[in-house]
Amino acid sequence: MENKLITPRKLQGFWELMPKEQMCFSNLINKIEEVFKNNCFVPLDTPVLEYSEALLAKSGGETDKEVYRFTKGSTDMCMRYDLTVPLARFVSMHKDELTFPFKRYQIGKVYRGERPQKGRYREFYQCDADIIGNEALSYVADAECIRLLEKCFEALNIDVEVRVSSRKILNGYVETLGKLDRINDILIVLDKLDKIPLEEAKLQLKEIGLSEKEQNNIIELTQTTGNIESVCKKLEKMCQNSTFVEGLENLKEVDSYLKNLGSKRVIYDLSIIRGHNYYTSIVFEGFFAGKKNLGAIAGGGRFDNLCGYFTDKKMPGVGMSVGITRLFSHLMQENYFNFDQISEIDCGIINFDETFAESLALEEELRKNGIRAEIFYENKSFKSKMKEANRRNLKYVVIVGENEVKEKKYTLKDMETSNQSQLSVAEIVKTIKG
Amino acid sequence: MENKLITPRKLQGFWELMPKEQMCFSNLINKIEEVFKNNCFVPLDTPVLEYSEALLAKSGGETDKEVYRFTKGSTDMCMRYDLTVPLARFVSMHKDELTFPFKRYQIGKVYRGERPQKGRYREFYQCDADIIGNEALSYVADAECIRLLEKCFEALNIDVEVRVSSRKILNGYVETLGKLDRINDILIVLDKLDKIPLEEAKLQLKEIGLSEKEQNNIIELTQTTGNIESVCKKLEKMCQNSTFVEGLENLKEVDSYLKNLGSKRVIYDLSIIRGHNYYTSIVFEGFFAGKKNLGAIAGGGRFDNLCGYFTDKKMPGVGMSVGITRLFSHLMQENYFNFDQISEIDCGIINFDETFAESLALEEELRKNGIRAEIFYENKSFKSKMKEANRRNLKYVVIVGENEVKEKKYTLKDMETSNQSQLSVAEIVKTIKG
Repeated sequence: MENKLITPRKLQGFWELMPKEQMCFSNLINKIEEVFKNNCFVPLDTPVLEYSEALLAKSGGETDKEVYRFTKGSTDMCMRYDLTVPLARFVSMHKDELTFPFKRYQIGKVYRGERPQKGRYREFYQCDADIIGNEALSYVADAECIRLLEKCFEALNIDVEVRVSSRKILNGYVETLGKLDRINDILIVLDKLDKIPLEEAKLQLKEIGLSEKEQNNIIELTQTTGNIESVCKKLEKMCQNSTFVEGLENLKEVDSYLKNLGSKRVIYDLSIIRGHNYYTSIVFEGFFAGKKNLGAIAGGGRFDNLCGYFTDKKMPGVGMSVGITRLFSHLMQENYFNFDQISEIDCGIINFDETFAESLALEEELRKNGIRAEIFYENKSFKSKMKEANRRNLKYVVIVGENEVKEKKYTLKDMETSNQSQLSVAEIVKTIKG
Repeated sequence: MENKLITPRKLQGFWELMPKEQMCFSNLINKIEEVFKNNCFVPLDTPVLEYSEALLAKSGGETDKEVYRFTKGSTDMCMRYDLTVPLARFVSMHKDELTFPFKRYQIGKVYRGERPQKGRYREFYQCDADIIGNEALSYVADAECIRLLEKCFEALNIDVEVRVSSRKILNGYVETLGKLDRINDILIVLDKLDKIPLEEAKLQLKEIGLSEKEQNNIIELTQTTGNIESVCKKLEKMCQNSTFVEGLENLKEVDSYLKNLGSKRVIYDLSIIRGHNYYTSIVFEGFFAGKKNLGAIAGGGRFDNLCGYFTDKKMPGVGMSVGITRLFSHLMQENYFNFDQISEIDCGIINFDETFAESLALEEELRKNGIRAEIFYENKSFKSKMKEANRRNLKYVVIVGENEVKEKKYTLKDMETSNQSQLSVAEIVKTIKG
């Protein structure tokens, strides 16, 4: 070939794992998917590309700088930047065929062309589970999504805490201040209280028109945290606004369902706001237990009207999402994965030239019995085959000599202990599986 | 909300399944993935986007009309149109870190903006498994990929036949005709012998410069099919060209490994050519057994130099791919899936108002035991809950009345037989799982 060589590069800010890392990552995803299925969610797999008109409906068709948008022929299209807008599009299209409440999960890649920075990627996975109601939706669904978040982390054996609030409580409070028209600005300030100095936050609230006392009160409100009883005790005296009271009632109702569902990891925390302005009631975030400072690794909430851009039919929903790409990075840092124990091979097969045919047959038989067996056909000598088994850090090898073939008993060597025993195929399978 | 409504549409030519279909499709993919893992392949998950320079290396950087290509900022990028070029890019980048032979699988979506037509989509899945060698690669790898193809379909309980050839046989024959410079044109004609009239094919071969006798001979050559013995018997007399003989020797070698590996579904068939011009030796395609006319549902082959555009290092490889999107469409047509028996719910829970809390707890307990149990919290009355269970075509419901709660024995109703029995949670789990 006489081509000029091209330097092999992946796109900047894109994520790509090496095989062992990918095995761990796939494992995380599989476990979360099992939890979604076990909780009666159905899978959905929408296209990566959507009409720009549909995907950018929220921004009124304005190009969001982060979105990968392009035209092909006369079609203006975008790569999805989340899985929620495609869900809204799908549910709106099929609202007469679907069974409601519609419980769907989707695990897939989304695209945001933002400036690459630590822990942020331009292509990353979202693991979403949502429950969409037809006209109405019980708060049991909110409890189910919160419990689902807990279960995902239980399945990963990760100690999690879920912090829960209701947007209505802050909304109601802001209403009593006569500042409901500035609610989004106020929430933006309150949402970054843990990132900016207190004085800076107060200054911004002052600019919005809150008095010193109102600033202090609303900040104190967001600092309310504890179990349902203590939070209610503190807040019930604070405000009689009907939205505020309703928010508190919602929390109590959700808490009662959560107790029935065996939840033990919920903390009520009025600082939980979540950025998306489509949340209207319950909001929640998951953190490594006791490590709120590391940032949320999952979250969700209730939206009154998922499909408002597509249909007049009211479809309230509640959903949760695990930030699996970010979670994986955290877990890598904390040495959660034991790479030494991860292999694509359960058992190497070491043959001699004269037993090659039988060794291939043995490989096949072991694989048929669920053992990931591998013969090293590129390594010629016995010695180099053993070296390969060591290099690959295998736990077991089977040695296949002529005697072994004759007696149909093979030498299984435990590479950690160096113990060897003569075993039948069935015994080898049993030993390795045990 | 006062937005003008947007008609929810998915992009033309894009594929999207309804939930039950998606459950079946995911199931196919999971089974194939299990086969890949069982055969010691590691997962890879390259980005959907690549630098255009890398992805279009083959075409010398010319924009292929089918490719989704665009710029963002100053970056010229493409959505991948297969999983092979990204593999070549990855292997070239990491050639000093990877273990060879590198056995990787990737299951992912690829993008081709071709004109939508029956059975062809602009976004579709590929399930690829490839073995990449370092400088050299034994023909055991070819046998492994062919056997892997068989195993994928065995796992799906689909009767398959794999038709195998070697490109070298036709190459060698064409060489004896002194037409090696026209080999690609000749292969293009021979590859469509089953699609165009024989006379048309002969005319095209004539235009390439083949005599009447040569036309007949090469067409007869491609019609050679049978087991290894019969194919060798026919061909060994036909031609002494060294490439031709080498091709035949490769087939014999692969056949001997296939026999060791327990293959029973291989037919040698010289009409198998496969379009891609990167194949250089063994090529194969999988068909529904006895239904070659339906077209290939899987295929693969050997390429001498996967990474030639990226590195001078020689890396031969062999791979196989299941056309899972196309396969799924076929299977849908043939009623392979029993949609009546597919549900996201194993067991509905029918409660009364006064047993709601206990029913939620029961749902949790059943789910914990692996039963996908669901309480119908949107349906208020007993009657409407039962109706919902019927509508969803559930096999079981558990009825939770006050007596049931007191005795911790619940009424399990088999919805097919209408049989009811009073059972503990453990007994319910056992009955449903059995």
